[in-house]
Amino acid sequence: MAVYTHVDEDALADFLAHYDLGDVIAFKGIAEGVENSNFLLQTERGSYILTLYEKRVKRGDLPFFLGLMGHLAAKGIACPTPIAGDDGEALRELCGRPAALTSFLRGLSVDRPSAAHCAALGRGMAELHGAGADFALSRPNALGPAGWRHLANACREQAEEVRPGLMTMIDDELAWLEQDWPRALPAGVIHADLFPDNVFFMGEALTGLIDFYFACNDLLAYDLAIAMNAWCFEPDRSFNATKARRLLAGYQATRPLTGEEIAAMPCLARGAALRFLLTRLYDWVNQVEGALVRPKDPAEYVAKLLFHRRVKTPGEYGLG
Amino acid sequence: MAVYTHVDEDALADFLAHYDLGDVIAFKGIAEGVENSNFLLQTERGSYILTLYEKRVKRGDLPFFLGLMGHLAAKGIACPTPIAGDDGEALRELCGRPAALTSFLRGLSVDRPSAAHCAALGRGMAELHGAGADFALSRPNALGPAGWRHLANACREQAEEVRPGLMTMIDDELAWLEQDWPRALPAGVIHADLFPDNVFFMGEALTGLIDFYFACNDLLAYDLAIAMNAWCFEPDRSFNATKARRLLAGYQATRPLTGEEIAAMPCLARGAALRFLLTRLYDWVNQVEGALVRPKDPAEYVAKLLFHRRVKTPGEYGLG
Repeated sequence: MAVYTHVDEDALADFLAHYDLGDVIAFKGIAEGVENSNFLLQTERGSYILTLYEKRVKRGDLPFFLGLMGHLAAKGIACPTPIAGDDGEALRELCGRPAALTSFLRGLSVDRPSAAHCAALGRGMAELHGAGADFALSRPNALGPAGWRHLANACREQAEEVRPGLMTMIDDELAWLEQDWPRALPAGVIHADLFPDNVFFMGEALTGLIDFYFACNDLLAYDLAIAMNAWCFEPDRSFNATKARRLLAGYQATRPLTGEEIAAMPCLARGAALRFLLTRLYDWVNQVEGALVRPKDPAEYVAKLLFHRRVKTPGEYGLG
Repeated sequence: MAVYTHVDEDALADFLAHYDLGDVIAFKGIAEGVENSNFLLQTERGSYILTLYEKRVKRGDLPFFLGLMGHLAAKGIACPTPIAGDDGEALRELCGRPAALTSFLRGLSVDRPSAAHCAALGRGMAELHGAGADFALSRPNALGPAGWRHLANACREQAEEVRPGLMTMIDDELAWLEQDWPRALPAGVIHADLFPDNVFFMGEALTGLIDFYFACNDLLAYDLAIAMNAWCFEPDRSFNATKARRLLAGYQATRPLTGEEIAAMPCLARGAALRFLLTRLYDWVNQVEGALVRPKDPAEYVAKLLFHRRVKTPGEYGLG
């Protein structure tokens, strides 16, 4: 939630010389996205989002991300559409950073999603997975099981200061997940970060999915597990089974889960909880002084992980 | 340049229940204004700015600021117009803070204003001063000469660490200004902070004046002196006499300066330089760890003050 790079009027004019958008009516840095600088651009032709990719997004991944958004948008998914300039390129340079102009999406993210929002998200995610099935590029999930142990080791020294016993818990969980993680489930392109701040609604209708910068190829049901963790726990950390049921039913209305996927859901939910526990812990113990974004408390995901450890059957999520 | 307060969908809906703006299309925190939280709100009716007043704006001053903007806008000045709700109130409460909805202004602020921009600013400022002449409320300038000594004393301990000799320079300047500061010049409502980031243009046409939260009653020509410091020095700290001449001529096309105002300009420019030197120095030596906004270097205004000390006649600004 920050603007890391200032774009002055001359740099903007040079960039926009590649487009035929008419006069600029407004250009404002917006508090959207954590890793990149985002600007709302309004011109005589309409509204757009200009994104400058800051250091945490690898330049080599941008053709995958932008290509994916273009592919999905062409199939009717409500996601930002990269807009090509007069040279046919959507990815260009601005203020020393890779940058792209994308379409503007209507809607608001919600802080406290309702069960109806969860149902709409499930439907939207199934459509996203369907539309991504024939996308030509692929990108491995750097934050999948193979990356977790690396993250865990990078936090080992300081984890005990954050919470006594935390490192033992993480090691136990890693050992269990490495053993039991499902490998043969349906896979494809997943968003991998569909938190409420990355989904826009108008009322209860889903109007936009944004921030595809963790998208990758992985198990489709893992995307659901990430969303279940992000959308179906209440602020007091209790699990809202109604929201989970609606999320999963919304998804299954378009793509029914296989029996193997249903059986694996408790394990996937544990993995999804561990993944965000580890990245939050990493950011927590590596806080940058003067950073514009405050790290999120990893304890929230400790609680989610402990919840899923106690789940005995997929029925507790409203599945099966 | 920050959003200090998060406004969730329920709080926003409660606030907007006082207005008849149709469905919300977008609501985004924007990087505009240093002291307050600002959001761009787009609804079926149009675009608006929602401002939450954070702690550095005194609640008791808000009727002056909002009343002034409404008064100026009604007279055709391109400034944010506070929008009253169904109860006739423009100032209400949101997320525990005073908040107001205002009209949206087209245009972009410029980092490197041209001489033509300076001319347009001069015209706009003269119109602003004219339109404010019959505004009923008044507010003394807390950052006028009477406030400078207080600020200087608050920085006394640390000023030497910032720059050897700085405190002596400030004390000398204060003594001189307290002696020579003009008291009988034309006075009225001034903006008092018309820096380039508070002025919008489309091309060379001025389309908006924003951020009236330093506005007060003071010498009209002092507003010009502040703007001359903010607009007429180049990044290498050299003074651009052409820009100053255009600024002052643009102003005088609508309100010619009196002989006394012209004669006082070198003194007013020194005072304006000292005022921003002191507030920057104060923010510099009182940096808050983890603050979202980095303080600006006071050295820029040391250089401006030294320039004006060497000025012998108002002719050096293109006056007289």
